[in-house]
Amino acid sequence: MNHDEITELAELGQQLRVDSVRATAAAGSGHATSSMSAADLTAVLFARHLRYDFENPESPSNDRFILSKGHASPVLYAAYKAAGAITDDELMTFRTYGSRLDGHPTPRIPWVDVATGSLGQGLPVGVGMALTAKRLDRTDCRVWVMCGDSELAEGSIWEAAEQAGYDHLDNLTAIVDVNRLGQRGPTRHGHDLDAYARRFHAFGWHTIEVDGHDVGAIDAAYQEAASTAGEPTVILARTLKGKGVAATEDREGLHGKPLKDSEGAIRELGGVRNIRIQVQRPTGAEALARHEGRLELPRYDKGGDEVATRNAFGEALTALGSARGDVVTLDGEVGDSTRAEFFSKEHPDRYFEFFIAEQQLVAAAVGMAARGWTPYASTFAAFLTRAHDFIRMAAISDVAINLVGSHAGVEIGEDGPSQMGVEDLSMFRAIHKSTVLYPCDANQTARLTAEMAGLPGVSYLRTSRSGMPVIYGPDEEFHVGGSKVLRSGDADRVTVIGAGQTVHEALAAADVLAGEGVDVRVIDLYSVKPVDRRTLREAASATGCLLTVEDHHEEGGIGDAVLDAFHDGRPTPRLVRLAVRMMPGSGKPEELLRAAGIDAESIAAAVRLLVEEAVVR
Amino acid sequence: MNHDEITELAELGQQLRVDSVRATAAAGSGHATSSMSAADLTAVLFARHLRYDFENPESPSNDRFILSKGHASPVLYAAYKAAGAITDDELMTFRTYGSRLDGHPTPRIPWVDVATGSLGQGLPVGVGMALTAKRLDRTDCRVWVMCGDSELAEGSIWEAAEQAGYDHLDNLTAIVDVNRLGQRGPTRHGHDLDAYARRFHAFGWHTIEVDGHDVGAIDAAYQEAASTAGEPTVILARTLKGKGVAATEDREGLHGKPLKDSEGAIRELGGVRNIRIQVQRPTGAEALARHEGRLELPRYDKGGDEVATRNAFGEALTALGSARGDVVTLDGEVGDSTRAEFFSKEHPDRYFEFFIAEQQLVAAAVGMAARGWTPYASTFAAFLTRAHDFIRMAAISDVAINLVGSHAGVEIGEDGPSQMGVEDLSMFRAIHKSTVLYPCDANQTARLTAEMAGLPGVSYLRTSRSGMPVIYGPDEEFHVGGSKVLRSGDADRVTVIGAGQTVHEALAAADVLAGEGVDVRVIDLYSVKPVDRRTLREAASATGCLLTVEDHHEEGGIGDAVLDAFHDGRPTPRLVRLAVRMMPGSGKPEELLRAAGIDAESIAAAVRLLVEEAVVR
Repeated sequence: MNHDEITELAELGQQLRVDSVRATAAAGSGHATSSMSAADLTAVLFARHLRYDFENPESPSNDRFILSKGHASPVLYAAYKAAGAITDDELMTFRTYGSRLDGHPTPRIPWVDVATGSLGQGLPVGVGMALTAKRLDRTDCRVWVMCGDSELAEGSIWEAAEQAGYDHLDNLTAIVDVNRLGQRGPTRHGHDLDAYARRFHAFGWHTIEVDGHDVGAIDAAYQEAASTAGEPTVILARTLKGKGVAATEDREGLHGKPLKDSEGAIRELGGVRNIRIQVQRPTGAEALARHEGRLELPRYDKGGDEVATRNAFGEALTALGSARGDVVTLDGEVGDSTRAEFFSKEHPDRYFEFFIAEQQLVAAAVGMAARGWTPYASTFAAFLTRAHDFIRMAAISDVAINLVGSHAGVEIGEDGPSQMGVEDLSMFRAIHKSTVLYPCDANQTARLTAEMAGLPGVSYLRTSRSGMPVIYGPDEEFHVGGSKVLRSGDADRVTVIGAGQTVHEALAAADVLAGEGVDVRVIDLYSVKPVDRRTLREAASATGCLLTVEDHHEEGGIGDAVLDAFHDGRPTPRLVRLAVRMMPGSGKPEELLRAAGIDAESIAAAVRLLVEEAVVR
Repeated sequence: MNHDEITELAELGQQLRVDSVRATAAAGSGHATSSMSAADLTAVLFARHLRYDFENPESPSNDRFILSKGHASPVLYAAYKAAGAITDDELMTFRTYGSRLDGHPTPRIPWVDVATGSLGQGLPVGVGMALTAKRLDRTDCRVWVMCGDSELAEGSIWEAAEQAGYDHLDNLTAIVDVNRLGQRGPTRHGHDLDAYARRFHAFGWHTIEVDGHDVGAIDAAYQEAASTAGEPTVILARTLKGKGVAATEDREGLHGKPLKDSEGAIRELGGVRNIRIQVQRPTGAEALARHEGRLELPRYDKGGDEVATRNAFGEALTALGSARGDVVTLDGEVGDSTRAEFFSKEHPDRYFEFFIAEQQLVAAAVGMAARGWTPYASTFAAFLTRAHDFIRMAAISDVAINLVGSHAGVEIGEDGPSQMGVEDLSMFRAIHKSTVLYPCDANQTARLTAEMAGLPGVSYLRTSRSGMPVIYGPDEEFHVGGSKVLRSGDADRVTVIGAGQTVHEALAAADVLAGEGVDVRVIDLYSVKPVDRRTLREAASATGCLLTVEDHHEEGGIGDAVLDAFHDGRPTPRLVRLAVRMMPGSGKPEELLRAAGIDAESIAAAVRLLVEEAVVR
């Protein structure tokens, strides 16, 4: 760059600072000083390196930019203004009700792919996008992720560092705005860039240390990153929080606040500018077309051999992958248990291994979904809790991801409580706009696995370890929001509602009770969210009393899902819940189902008690 | 060591292998090959380095041993047998119903401090114990953590590596059983010990590479670890999965299974032995005494200035710390927001900073609680989801930890959805034996903060960002499992139930409605779990209809908690729920409460509708 270009870039940096100060001052809140440290890094990226068509944000040829330090949103929005994507008037709506310029970026803005603001998530999501570009879209898209130094304390950053180094993601660049100050004071390593470089280098990254306020040096660093082959690059930029204003520069205690004297600060920064930049458009080819074909799901004989729902999931997913080229599968080093590995045999090019790193597993699914792919990520149901914060953020990102948790409930037996998912239904039900499915049979599992591919938002499928009877034919249909009434008659005295294993327990109990002259209705509530309100209300009005049975803790699962049908002030049925209330140990599945009081015998006993005590007719 | 000693140790290693093969064969399940790789490492540790009094496991002078690779439980139980702590008969109960020898270790065994089995947790918990020994108990206890190589992919390992390096925890030793094979195949780095050494070294650790089947070399490594000052040590041990049996040694596809020919394997390993070892007892001094004094909680004027509950928490916690020397505070780099930092001013020696690493934050609390301290760990409510798997495991560990989440709900305003805890009540309610508290006033917060210190299990306190009216006097008492009826009369037509901010909204709505001639009962449900069943049942029977209002998603929160009072088959009241059903953006708190339909006006409107439609009397 020549002297003029350098001056212009420095001016652009100042403009981003001024606009960050103005936006936060107008809002009366927001992270001015965190934006000021990142201004030069952002200016050089947008003006000279990012290849992005603001009119066609979905193009797979576009580079992607993720502001992992999402609290520095003012500098991002200021860059959008400089790029002509938003007006100055809109910039001044920052953080106001109804504005799309939220306190932390969300995809309500068309150029934001994923929500950030929970720190440590941008880099692992970026790994997912870099993998997408390299292995799926096969474009020369670059992924740029701007991190804060504080967030390098998050383990998820190192899951991403390991994955990116191992996969040689040279299309991924992490830019770390090392401004030395976290929210409440200095970070662990302050301005010791070497400390961070040693860590990234050990994980197989190319590292560059740079003065984050020297636009020429930043430009050279971006160029070096873009031309580095075989390794991801991290640019460690020494910056000053609140840079450019004496009252704020490198000072503690100013995190997350507008400047006290914003007018004076704007003057000190050289006043309001109106530099416009032309972000360069990508020139690369569009992504490869994806094949579409006829879906031929596996078919299981009704009444035939028992089949574990996890097996049916693996087989259905493989079939789905044959029919739809957009379906990708992500494993957390348990593909042999979840049966996701069936997919890898047929579609190795769309199978991704993340080893035991559930945060990276889910983050990669988010990144791939944000790029238009249909990911299925699976591990044990219990271990999806490891990624809860990523799942929560995925809902804010409004991406369509499919998560599958195997080894649900005490039914897994000998492995003991650490491996038993008994909180998963609760976790997933509380996610905004989520879908929660829990099949009890192989044909049902196959259908629901395929159904998930078309759903918006976060979808969850819960599978089980042991074989279960096949009670539905292969042509039976199952819809999200539906249920199946498996036993029903005019003399039903209670409705027993289960899902997964407890459907079979309920059927066995119904048979025993029928022999005793007590009729019960049995509902298979395979769609836990949304729940089949009509069927539940009919059952309530017909039998008066509902008995829910679930291989899950009593809070937030099937019992609560059933009540979802009755919370609008209409008459509520009597409800009795059977659920896992103890801390299970090891044992045979049937011993543990019994101990938890959710087996056929426990159901029958509960119904008998209700009949005897005349709680039911 | 002389030749005889070496031979004896090698023999002990073989005994641990044989007993692992025997236990898994008897159980018909379990991780034989993962135990066989770790046998020599375990043998040398127990025979020559661990200082532990099996008859006095709580002694702070004891070393601690955490089997982070919990699936290798057979080798741990075999070591217990060799140490005389359990009999061979008990060893053979492995994984059977009712045995304390679960598939993965839990504290049902007195010498197991914390449950393991969710990988990547042992090391961060060990960091908490090492900090306890160094800064709280001030004993020369060593903490030994045995990890698998696969679990080094978990980000939580690197949160721990960073914390331990930064805190110079030279009383912590990680032993990594690098057997090259994960569950479904080879690990990322196979037997490349250097790859791991580079990573740990970059994080400030002393590293030792060793042949994990050479007992002499292992012994030297443990000695070097114990004598290394100023840095934690990691021993990277090259081992073979299934070591000692040709059919299993270094073979894929044998994870988590008993050996096919266990009799032959036992012969090949030299048959059953009965070596007894005497684990050396600790000689160090006992821990320092902890002071106990009179608790003087802060007092707030009823009807005086508004006070944020997070402020009251910080002040109460500080007072509690003055009264009780066992109370410690853990921060995740947001102490200025959660107000935990108030504690640091008065009690810096019992204040621990974990930066932005929520898994390590909670894991350290678990480690400290397991050592008899009373930890309060706090961050934003939203970010506690990051540690969900650790909270789940804490319940299995049966430790008493106090977690505090600030910035709950849409009420935080401008920062936007990434910072809003709207799933936290659901997450915590579904934790086994948890307590969930949600105060609406400063005096109530102070009391509940103090109450938590005496509770078993996982306790959660939800605090809010903005100031709230002080509606209770400083002498009002609040009990876990209680509630407060704030408005009540014979003509009540609906009961409005809130907690936190929505209590104030409910009171305002009640005033408006009273002016319109509609009386409503108002309940402050500050104890979300356990819930005050009696009061709720009385209200239901008095008013027929319950209206819950919560700054939380509709699933798993206060609405569901209220129904917990009615799920034993008794008549269920009509229920209407107001909750956060949309995806919030930024805005002023009052704008967002309105948009979510949980403010006073929304409550009043809902009650009017119920009255008009004659749903209520």
